Amino acid sequence: MTASFGDGLDVVYTITASADAVAARAQDIAIEQTVEVTPALCADPFVATHVVGRVVDIVPAGPNRFDVTLSYAGDVVGDEIPQLFSVVFGNVSLKAGVRVREVRPSSSLVARFPGPRFGISGLRDRLGVHDRPLVMGAVKPLGRTVEELAAFAGAMATGGLDLIKDDHGITDQRFAPFEARVAACAAAVAEANRRTGYRTLYCPTVTGPADRLLARSCFARDAGVGGLLISPLVAGPDFLRAAAVQTGLPVIAHPAMAGAFLASPDHGMAHGVLLGTLMRLAGADMVVFPGWGGRFPLTRDDCGAIDAALKCPLHGVASAMPVPAGGLTLERIDEMRALFGLDVTFLIGSAVYERSSDLVANAAHFRHLAACGGGAR
Amino acid sequence: MTASFGDGLDVVYTITASADAVAARAQDIAIEQTVEVTPALCADPFVATHVVGRVVDIVPAGPNRFDVTLSYAGDVVGDEIPQLFSVVFGNVSLKAGVRVREVRPSSSLVARFPGPRFGISGLRDRLGVHDRPLVMGAVKPLGRTVEELAAFAGAMATGGLDLIKDDHGITDQRFAPFEARVAACAAAVAEANRRTGYRTLYCPTVTGPADRLLARSCFARDAGVGGLLISPLVAGPDFLRAAAVQTGLPVIAHPAMAGAFLASPDHGMAHGVLLGTLMRLAGADMVVFPGWGGRFPLTRDDCGAIDAALKCPLHGVASAMPVPAGGLTLERIDEMRALFGLDVTFLIGSAVYERSSDLVANAAHFRHLAACGGGAR
Repeated sequence: MTASFGDGLDVVYTITASADAVAARAQDIAIEQTVEVTPALCADPFVATHVVGRVVDIVPAGPNRFDVTLSYAGDVVGDEIPQLFSVVFGNVSLKAGVRVREVRPSSSLVARFPGPRFGISGLRDRLGVHDRPLVMGAVKPLGRTVEELAAFAGAMATGGLDLIKDDHGITDQRFAPFEARVAACAAAVAEANRRTGYRTLYCPTVTGPADRLLARSCFARDAGVGGLLISPLVAGPDFLRAAAVQTGLPVIAHPAMAGAFLASPDHGMAHGVLLGTLMRLAGADMVVFPGWGGRFPLTRDDCGAIDAALKCPLHGVASAMPVPAGGLTLERIDEMRALFGLDVTFLIGSAVYERSSDLVANAAHFRHLAACGGGAR
Repeated sequence: MTASFGDGLDVVYTITASADAVAARAQDIAIEQTVEVTPALCADPFVATHVVGRVVDIVPAGPNRFDVTLSYAGDVVGDEIPQLFSVVFGNVSLKAGVRVREVRPSSSLVARFPGPRFGISGLRDRLGVHDRPLVMGAVKPLGRTVEELAAFAGAMATGGLDLIKDDHGITDQRFAPFEARVAACAAAVAEANRRTGYRTLYCPTVTGPADRLLARSCFARDAGVGGLLISPLVAGPDFLRAAAVQTGLPVIAHPAMAGAFLASPDHGMAHGVLLGTLMRLAGADMVVFPGWGGRFPLTRDDCGAIDAALKCPLHGVASAMPVPAGGLTLERIDEMRALFGLDVTFLIGSAVYERSSDLVANAAHFRHLAACGGGAR
């Protein structure tokens, strides 16, 4: 075992292996994630010293489990988000018994991945709300017309929800084509803001074709939206950064397909790694994930790990906003606040529509609930 | 249970559930993957009839397991690859005990996802090789200079490998920056082709930033490369199509990060779904995956399922080329041919470099081995 490179990325993998085998498994990962050759072919002194990953630490973590820390050089990771993902989990994803427990970027690596451009404080500045959790609604369901969806968005904005996003599966279907929908919803929210004085941000789904996603993002910006919703595991994680740079807007990461990485305790990535550290480095200002006790199996600890990874000190990278979702109801807001504190955004989907037939009143009620006990009311 | 939409996508999920619970689980998926609302909110007749997914079939598949067939309307999927992935596995990825066993697109859906532009026969035409398996080499390892990598590419082309790709982790690091490397390797292979009369295709890694990947692809095309290597689960799956359309070149899918979907028998996607049907619909002309018995845990059956999904009749979509890899050695070519038949490309990484110090002779030997028993020698 050797010292960390210091200028790159240290990754802790939990490996399922016997004590006899773990050192070889660790060395195998070090090679697989960097040079992908047999040991004889990476004996070149430069490659062996500066390129091949290093096994920095191996500690027991339970029966036939070890936490293995690998160090990757900064030059191996480079300065691109896709390569960051590849180095962390690209090829080893195809091996059994490998779970990414923690990702620890160095300060010099982080300098190349600026992270959230707004983050929690930038979002709060934009909204003018500093002393309470935020509340986000969802324009839904798929199948409704442009006019219906815009009416929903306008009503939720009138009631004072802080952010309103599209359902992630509402893209460019013929029920409500992208440009018409985004223009109508943005106009409805802007009109509501003029009347109320609120600064509700409408955040449409821009996930779409690889060669049109950035154009959609620009269309949305020009239509006056307040942010963008992207499914990074569906579109490609680097679209968070690219869309943020292109538009100057806040970006929200949706967890579609992320569950593939989270489901097994022996494989994939820990919740805090994928939906915390990596999404934050990739530039997400807000990260949506299923809250515990809703219609998804995440636990309170899983949610706490995501929250911690989005907010912990990270060489000056802005904190990102946790957005628990997935079947939240009115009654559970206090329980959620106990974990997340003030810096949380409650994503309330169906419940906003279901409380009564008056969507404006329902939205106002949620805004009030979020404020209760949090200072301003 | 109702009839399939017929114009969209039927998906078979293997669900871990008790007999009492499976019907509700199936209906939950039908809603989660389409309208994401409580049942009361999708009672609207149009939405209920034309938008909400349908439970088409539930059959036992073992103790506490059921194969549940869901049908999604064509208009829900639309005509975009990212939404195809979202509908198949977006939100349900976050639930426990859901594995995508099979994806069955209708002919009208497939008409919107044209699949491989070259496919097996188009690749063979381009290479002028119709009667034997193909052989692919890899430019490696990361850390070598542009000059070294170009010399390797030139030598492997001189020896007659059919295709030469970059390692997927060689992107734009300072060891060998993208443009210089691609230009030098393409020139080395072109020079070799002029001397030998072979038509070796050099296929660089173009995986990179979301806002530069297509520009890289075009740079590579203009430099004279023969194809592009993309990691769709890292870059975004729709970059296969987008890069192919933009450049007119064959595209090769690399499986980095794909293992997250494959690792659990109870969750994720079957090998044939992700690396077969979905990669084919996304436009991959060739799909790299770990062969069995190498340094990855895939079984012969897993590889057979991928092979079948890449080649089976699919409403006129071209077959895509299976590219088993991951530690193939000389001795195992016959064993691989027994499964894949003639239409296979052997990706030989380290072994080409290790046979002797004469890389040209090693490459020629592999070309010869691929031909042995396959007709032309």
